[in-house]
Amino acid sequence: MTHSQRRDNLKAQIAARGLEAMLVTDLINVRYLSGFTGSNGALLVFADDRGPVLATDGRYRTQAAEQAAGIEVAIERAVGRHLVGRAADAGVGKLGFESNVVTVDGFDALTTELADRKAATELVRAAGTVEALREVKDEGEVALLRLACEAADAALTDLVQRGGLRPGRTEREVGRELEALMFDHGADAISFETIVAAGANSAIPHHRPSDAVLAAGDFVKIDFGALVAGYHSDMTRTFILGKAGKAAAWQLEIYRLVADAQRAGREALVPGAALRDVDGAARKLIVDAGYGEQFGHGLGHGVGLQIHEAPGIGATSAGTLLAGSVVTVEPGVYLPGRGGVRIEDTLVVPDETAGHGPELLTQFPKELTIL
Amino acid sequence: MTHSQRRDNLKAQIAARGLEAMLVTDLINVRYLSGFTGSNGALLVFADDRGPVLATDGRYRTQAAEQAAGIEVAIERAVGRHLVGRAADAGVGKLGFESNVVTVDGFDALTTELADRKAATELVRAAGTVEALREVKDEGEVALLRLACEAADAALTDLVQRGGLRPGRTEREVGRELEALMFDHGADAISFETIVAAGANSAIPHHRPSDAVLAAGDFVKIDFGALVAGYHSDMTRTFILGKAGKAAAWQLEIYRLVADAQRAGREALVPGAALRDVDGAARKLIVDAGYGEQFGHGLGHGVGLQIHEAPGIGATSAGTLLAGSVVTVEPGVYLPGRGGVRIEDTLVVPDETAGHGPELLTQFPKELTIL
Repeated sequence: MTHSQRRDNLKAQIAARGLEAMLVTDLINVRYLSGFTGSNGALLVFADDRGPVLATDGRYRTQAAEQAAGIEVAIERAVGRHLVGRAADAGVGKLGFESNVVTVDGFDALTTELADRKAATELVRAAGTVEALREVKDEGEVALLRLACEAADAALTDLVQRGGLRPGRTEREVGRELEALMFDHGADAISFETIVAAGANSAIPHHRPSDAVLAAGDFVKIDFGALVAGYHSDMTRTFILGKAGKAAAWQLEIYRLVADAQRAGREALVPGAALRDVDGAARKLIVDAGYGEQFGHGLGHGVGLQIHEAPGIGATSAGTLLAGSVVTVEPGVYLPGRGGVRIEDTLVVPDETAGHGPELLTQFPKELTIL
Repeated sequence: MTHSQRRDNLKAQIAARGLEAMLVTDLINVRYLSGFTGSNGALLVFADDRGPVLATDGRYRTQAAEQAAGIEVAIERAVGRHLVGRAADAGVGKLGFESNVVTVDGFDALTTELADRKAATELVRAAGTVEALREVKDEGEVALLRLACEAADAALTDLVQRGGLRPGRTEREVGRELEALMFDHGADAISFETIVAAGANSAIPHHRPSDAVLAAGDFVKIDFGALVAGYHSDMTRTFILGKAGKAAAWQLEIYRLVADAQRAGREALVPGAALRDVDGAARKLIVDAGYGEQFGHGLGHGVGLQIHEAPGIGATSAGTLLAGSVVTVEPGVYLPGRGGVRIEDTLVVPDETAGHGPELLTQFPKELTIL
């Protein structure tokens, strides 16, 4: 889908909300709608046929002209104020703005601009309008997410094949090697701070790699991702460093439980399903096994231009799963002081007419692996 | 300075503004005042002797208790709403909030909470209060900034000594090697996206490392930094890859000009100096040489828990330079299509009574180096 088509989808939303135009100030949303990736910018989109205006400052003159080809570019440091002024000049009555992004001081500046002009333009809260469009990915986006997930898959494959997960190494060493391998396989950057958690640390859901040393008998939980052209991958795998080549009984028990719950969660990715039911499909297995208290987070989340975006998939989530959304499924069981397991994939929710289940983007095997 | 002493400084500011308490929701400010580094948290600080309250969610129960020892921790997901409620319960009349951080939707939630309670508490805009305290660094902060700058110095030294800057390598390869070396020298992370810009790319102030290949006759501009315990280093050096061991006359001219301007800027780092005069001290040399249009950004900025923080040092900056602030001095001259030079240091502004100039934290040599 072209940026222009995305803006057409937004126009429909703007009109449906009874607005005449929308001021987009979230930089991720500006990128989604225009292609512009600079660190200062805002976009004015009209509900009718009038063309959009991208405002940015002088540092980005060349970049904006290249990335947002075909869009009028206004060079102004105070991008929001300028575009509110443009909307007023254009006679816009109701102007939507991103009330989940604009700060109180930023809002004061916008209202001051309108008051100075004695403009009749009214600022209307329109939080999450573009984020809702972004929930369903188009083909180009899925292609980039696929590339990001492939880079992560290839990096972890290399790491394991070269014996990178072995007793005696630190969490930090493992994390840095994995990150370097992602770059080797085409990542532009890492998707978020890599988690490598060994032994008792694996029971901490979001552990930072430390100088802790991997030891025989440890769980090693790795949660990581690659960034490709702005799109994030997200995957978690948990390995066992065997003692004399063997896992302990408690390790086998929670690994199998989490793997079963994860499969149930993946199988629940049906368009139209209630989000809380998707969470529940996986959570039920863990609760029934008596580990409900040890699974203290939601089942998953959308992934795209942000590592966490709509929808959230948790026990109290409202709404339903949309065909074409890309989400993670990541149950975990964490036993404080002992260790924990999380298994996470990123998947594309299929169309109702697709005749197949969700597309698995993170293809690294999930079978219990004792290293 | 302890976190408790920092909060005492804030109390004085709160009282001076006629407020009874302040709600701190910027996570960097929360960290500065409490030590807590989680991704969800807010802090309520009273002007009087009542103790502070840190709110965060269940994920951070253990971490908050450890990092913010001695502070009451409230476990609540909606941290801002909870603390506004606490302020109302405590009978606070005027409650300051960070209007430069709180969004319009966030503000709505806070006012709804107060309305639901029929509380007499009034929310008062208090933007930048903690940021102003952070402008002057305490000894512990300078020590961490020194470590961060040392890691960057050591990495660049290694890179040059091992011949890492040579024709035939890509910008990306150089950047990745430099980043790996920073980790080897103790960095927790990189401070910002590393800039490696060769040849004509060096004329782009903020160029992303690409697959462009370094060639004889190129400028190579490197702007990078290390992160240590939350504190950022920031340094730029520009090298020349000689053609038959020699630089071109135009390269020598702009290198010497920028080096002279940079020295003038460093020498202008006197406490009490007008910020725009510090900028002017360096800019005058570049303007007088006829390159004013080719130096299109400010001279520098504060560095600390953020890579860019107060003060900004530019041609239109208001205010004066404070003793104990840590700032960059980074003039540049960029000739589109040909190449550019930037030289940047991070320095500590001395006390008036110190009897010496600013402390140079980035010690890698700045002499013209032809590789």
